[in-house]
Amino acid sequence: MTEHDDPVVLGPSSGVPELDERKLSTLAQVGHHWRNAVADTAAWHDALPVDPGLRAAAPDPRGRFSRVEFVRDGADPDVEATPHAGVMPTAGGRTLNLARRLALGRPLRSTAVLEERMRKVIALPVLSSDALSSVAYGPEAMLVVLVLAGSAGLALSLPIAAAIVVLMIAVGLSYRQTIRAYPRGGGSYIVASDNLGPWPGMIAAAGLMLDYVLTVAVSVAAGVAAITSAIPELAPDRVPLGLAAIAILLAGNLRGVRQAGAIFASPTYAFILAIALLVVVGVVDAAGRGFAATPHPPVHAVEGLSLLVVLRAFSSGATAMTGIEAISDGVPSFRPVEWRNARTTLTLMVSLLVAMFVGTIALIELDGIVPSSSQTVLSQLAHLHLGSGVLYAYVQAATALILLLAANTAYSDFPRLLFFLARDFRAPRLFLRLGDRLAFSNGIIVLSVAAAAIYVAFSGRTESLIPLFAVGVFLAFTLSQSGMVMFWRRKRGPNWRRALTINAIGAGLSAIVLVITGVTKFTEGAWLVVILVPLLACWFWRIRVHYDAVGRAIELHRIPVNDACRAVIPVATAGLGSQRKDEIGRAEGEESPDELAHLIVVPLASMDLAGMRTLAYAASLGQPMLAIHLSPDDDDADRFRRYWKTWGDLLPLQIVDSPYRSLVVPTTRYLEALHAQRPDLTITVLLPELIVRGWHRILHNQLDVRLRRALRNHPGIVVSTVPFHIPDG
Amino acid sequence: MTEHDDPVVLGPSSGVPELDERKLSTLAQVGHHWRNAVADTAAWHDALPVDPGLRAAAPDPRGRFSRVEFVRDGADPDVEATPHAGVMPTAGGRTLNLARRLALGRPLRSTAVLEERMRKVIALPVLSSDALSSVAYGPEAMLVVLVLAGSAGLALSLPIAAAIVVLMIAVGLSYRQTIRAYPRGGGSYIVASDNLGPWPGMIAAAGLMLDYVLTVAVSVAAGVAAITSAIPELAPDRVPLGLAAIAILLAGNLRGVRQAGAIFASPTYAFILAIALLVVVGVVDAAGRGFAATPHPPVHAVEGLSLLVVLRAFSSGATAMTGIEAISDGVPSFRPVEWRNARTTLTLMVSLLVAMFVGTIALIELDGIVPSSSQTVLSQLAHLHLGSGVLYAYVQAATALILLLAANTAYSDFPRLLFFLARDFRAPRLFLRLGDRLAFSNGIIVLSVAAAAIYVAFSGRTESLIPLFAVGVFLAFTLSQSGMVMFWRRKRGPNWRRALTINAIGAGLSAIVLVITGVTKFTEGAWLVVILVPLLACWFWRIRVHYDAVGRAIELHRIPVNDACRAVIPVATAGLGSQRKDEIGRAEGEESPDELAHLIVVPLASMDLAGMRTLAYAASLGQPMLAIHLSPDDDDADRFRRYWKTWGDLLPLQIVDSPYRSLVVPTTRYLEALHAQRPDLTITVLLPELIVRGWHRILHNQLDVRLRRALRNHPGIVVSTVPFHIPDG
Repeated sequence: MTEHDDPVVLGPSSGVPELDERKLSTLAQVGHHWRNAVADTAAWHDALPVDPGLRAAAPDPRGRFSRVEFVRDGADPDVEATPHAGVMPTAGGRTLNLARRLALGRPLRSTAVLEERMRKVIALPVLSSDALSSVAYGPEAMLVVLVLAGSAGLALSLPIAAAIVVLMIAVGLSYRQTIRAYPRGGGSYIVASDNLGPWPGMIAAAGLMLDYVLTVAVSVAAGVAAITSAIPELAPDRVPLGLAAIAILLAGNLRGVRQAGAIFASPTYAFILAIALLVVVGVVDAAGRGFAATPHPPVHAVEGLSLLVVLRAFSSGATAMTGIEAISDGVPSFRPVEWRNARTTLTLMVSLLVAMFVGTIALIELDGIVPSSSQTVLSQLAHLHLGSGVLYAYVQAATALILLLAANTAYSDFPRLLFFLARDFRAPRLFLRLGDRLAFSNGIIVLSVAAAAIYVAFSGRTESLIPLFAVGVFLAFTLSQSGMVMFWRRKRGPNWRRALTINAIGAGLSAIVLVITGVTKFTEGAWLVVILVPLLACWFWRIRVHYDAVGRAIELHRIPVNDACRAVIPVATAGLGSQRKDEIGRAEGEESPDELAHLIVVPLASMDLAGMRTLAYAASLGQPMLAIHLSPDDDDADRFRRYWKTWGDLLPLQIVDSPYRSLVVPTTRYLEALHAQRPDLTITVLLPELIVRGWHRILHNQLDVRLRRALRNHPGIVVSTVPFHIPDG
Repeated sequence: MTEHDDPVVLGPSSGVPELDERKLSTLAQVGHHWRNAVADTAAWHDALPVDPGLRAAAPDPRGRFSRVEFVRDGADPDVEATPHAGVMPTAGGRTLNLARRLALGRPLRSTAVLEERMRKVIALPVLSSDALSSVAYGPEAMLVVLVLAGSAGLALSLPIAAAIVVLMIAVGLSYRQTIRAYPRGGGSYIVASDNLGPWPGMIAAAGLMLDYVLTVAVSVAAGVAAITSAIPELAPDRVPLGLAAIAILLAGNLRGVRQAGAIFASPTYAFILAIALLVVVGVVDAAGRGFAATPHPPVHAVEGLSLLVVLRAFSSGATAMTGIEAISDGVPSFRPVEWRNARTTLTLMVSLLVAMFVGTIALIELDGIVPSSSQTVLSQLAHLHLGSGVLYAYVQAATALILLLAANTAYSDFPRLLFFLARDFRAPRLFLRLGDRLAFSNGIIVLSVAAAAIYVAFSGRTESLIPLFAVGVFLAFTLSQSGMVMFWRRKRGPNWRRALTINAIGAGLSAIVLVITGVTKFTEGAWLVVILVPLLACWFWRIRVHYDAVGRAIELHRIPVNDACRAVIPVATAGLGSQRKDEIGRAEGEESPDELAHLIVVPLASMDLAGMRTLAYAASLGQPMLAIHLSPDDDDADRFRRYWKTWGDLLPLQIVDSPYRSLVVPTTRYLEALHAQRPDLTITVLLPELIVRGWHRILHNQLDVRLRRALRNHPGIVVSTVPFHIPDG
């Protein structure tokens, strides 16, 4: 459940694929090819004008180094950045840092990624908060549908609940098999990818991602409902209350809050206790009247009792199962023997879930409770049996707390899923990055924004969110358990037929629920999920296609042996057009330094200090260079030529008349025309850039930005600026 | 009036200040200092691997050069860009170009900046449209105020009009003096700057700028009112109609429409004719009833007739004078002898203005017309005397047309004023730029946006805009004529006392109107102008301060003679910390190429083709270089070091551990720490950059952008990227 289940997999450098033997040998061969060009490697070290190891780091005159930013560890040749090196030495940088430290705490070292193992007594509440908390909205979601068919509908609540219980047990048993097979954690994405192939994996991941977003939205909505049931005055503030809850979850998770502590265990036990209390008191009350069911208040049937209503009620009630997969994801956080402890915990959790679900439904039936828009069903039960005092408050508080904790579960699962996707190059690589506090900050932020947007879009109403909820969950269940069926078929092993049968039943039942949910809830919102899941999956696929293309493009190639007798044109004797290299357009090939032919072009507007510094910078590199000047008219051309001659006409200059006065495009086209003469050249464009602060920027042309954009797609052209800093004024 | 009154001043290169003798001599001395470093200038020319003159420009394999983009003119060493060189050879570039050509027409060569001289018969209508069109709203604006005081108020319209006529004549005479003194065009900004100093000049410019924006808004509003008076059904569409008019003005002016043609002369004559017709028929009608004034319809007085009402009516009516300064701005567009022709035209214009103003007021008085919200006063007069047929339509159409033409006047004046300001470094230099069609496109766009914003903000209601209008006009009048007073005092010359007296009277009367307007209209909107004028003037001043600072910073300095025996540390023997240069922090001084000491730093994430190409690029420059790699943990550091050794350990590498995982700031700080060792070094940071298209960009870190931003304010550090283009995928 925490982001550090598996330190081998989830460390900061674990997303970087290692080079295999073949690639290492290519690398060595490339190095060999370079050796001619680099020649004396010791000379390069000797030439360094600074000490890269910062051994002689002088105290900065401005006192900047009073805080040690880089340290060295004896024999270790590396320099190590201290937290001070992460702060820009400006007022803005320090303020930002202070704000981050206040919000997030001190940054944690990468080595702080530790595996945290949980005892069963802690793991049970931590990993089952999502599943058990579903009791707070699942039964109610079912009744909300049944009540549409009036008393006849409500009468069906027990049989439907029975079907859901069967489903819970089947899925629970099915996940017991997954735990055995994937002791390192078998999330639906991994199981489906491994056994069914990338597409089912990506679809499962898409379903899960939506599920996690909805878990946050639904749990927060239900938690807020628990609060507004107790304090009806807060009902109009549902949206700000929910957003505040999401903000707390965001901040807490960015801080990298540990979940395995007693703080996170207590709400679950408190909630179990609350439901138990409710059920016991309720049953005692019912016993007092000889278990005679209180009749429902008269309910006006809005629609006839049809199969559709029954199925919709079933699929709404099945949301009580969400979160059941959590333990199979989190196997590595158990103490050894992990899978055995995890299985025991899963069995315990499913038993509790079934008991609480059945107890709640039975009590509702006995007491003739009907869902109301102003109060949750749980709140009604609590009022009925526990009055309005401290016990009632306890039930509501425990409900709100466990729902918040359930939302928090998604905050571990969603970024971790994105990490797995990113590791497989199916999500942007930025989701690999560990934040200051070793949490996957980017995923946490994306989840918060998405959940907040959905929460606001649905005005925080649980009943509107429920129809979207179940599709993603049962899609992931189905794919994950179908994957397990394939797993057993391939892997065999002891008792594989029994395991396969159990998973097949789980997969089959999940698939049935998936279809029921998709069809009956389609118009109520499930269509959104039905559209989004394939779109997301396609996006994951496109990302992989792109990263694969990039990987192929930047992979080192072995250099052919006959390329050794290469005909490099020495710069000093390079002629004009006729002597072009054979490989036209090969401006970004795999070259060693001596194969690179340079031309430096300096576009100059005027002969000022910034321009002269750029010229000096260019000339000091000792490569062929050309200054160019664009003139809007002949007056300007003549004037600039005169200045250039006055200066001494020291370097080659070409004046380009631009009688239509545009600058960027003609400069671009001129550079392209030069490049067309010698496509093998690497042309470096060096522009003077005046660095000014703030709004003053609009007072200067952004030629570098525009030229860089215009030349962006042209291979073999480097655009660079030589900055010239203007004091404020 | 046109943007090319004065080709000497308004050409494309006229904004670039020329170097004076002192600066030229500095330039020569700097060149002399460089000669050691550059040594053999011929060698630099010989080393060029391409022909900068594009003599041997090969046909591009992709057929790009089928359209000739650069041409050469015989002996001229310059290359000249054809219009094809202004089009990017991409689908997007060609589409953009097509759209621009359709909207604006073919681009014009800089040499097409021609002086266009106008005969008086053309100059009169072109230059006086602004002033004469004011008759369409001035009298009405006055009556709208007077009607508040009921019949007693309306009775005062003739005396107030008489005062305005006096004012018109005084200001007219005053501007005759300006024409004589400033035959090259004496706008208020120039006259006030020349004679009163920069601050009055900037304040006059600020007032004028607001005035031009309001001219567009008011003229368009009044023009739309002329249309909606005739076709009341269009009244609700006032705002879209006005915006459409502004869009037409924008497009037309970006095309660089010539204003001196007959098309632009005719609406003025048509309007003069319309008013003449109206007045003649009206007077004949009145003569028919023995010049007995028709009594006003009973008017309910909203407030008592106070001095305040009279003064407000006066200042509203004085808006009829706006535009009177146009001829003095446009003297150079007259045929020789310019000032004499301009003076004659001014006299004619003021006579016409007075006649039309008096005629209109007299007719209103005779016919007992009262302003109405649904119809303009002119429209009422036209209905009364010309019925509702073709003659009525003619009057309304002529009114709408001349108002549009008056708005068009601001489209010449506003960008030209910005040009003058920019030339004096008091506005962003981008206002110096001539567009494709030799119009000051940037100024035209700013004017359109500002006028449209104001028009929408005031819902296109003329009466709401009028109070803002007069303050800027009379501020500019006052400053300009006060400037003329100073001019005569200093310059003397024949008849100077008489000229001074005339200008003093003009200045005095304008100042009185300015104060009256500012005070009486303050709460109705003039406060906005009272606030904006000093703000704008301050902004102009701040811009000048900035450009002055930049100018001082980038000015070439003479190199001290004793600097000749400079102690450059040869790169190859440069040692570490102890051998630091004396001039700490002098990283962006005035150096010749041999005085620049380089260090190239290549931050590498992985040993792939993009990284190797960056290394090759860096090494091929033959300067001291250092590769750095940031590791989030020791595993990564060890792995990278192994790769580096496998490759051959050819170049210096420093691994920087960043156990807190951030990249940008530690890299920045590390570079700063290196730079602190040798502040005289120019450190070039070379990053590999993967160039991908479209949304794929989010899949890659934007390290270069972030690093460039972080290092932006650090002198002596150049951040550059070596692009590596990824094929689409």
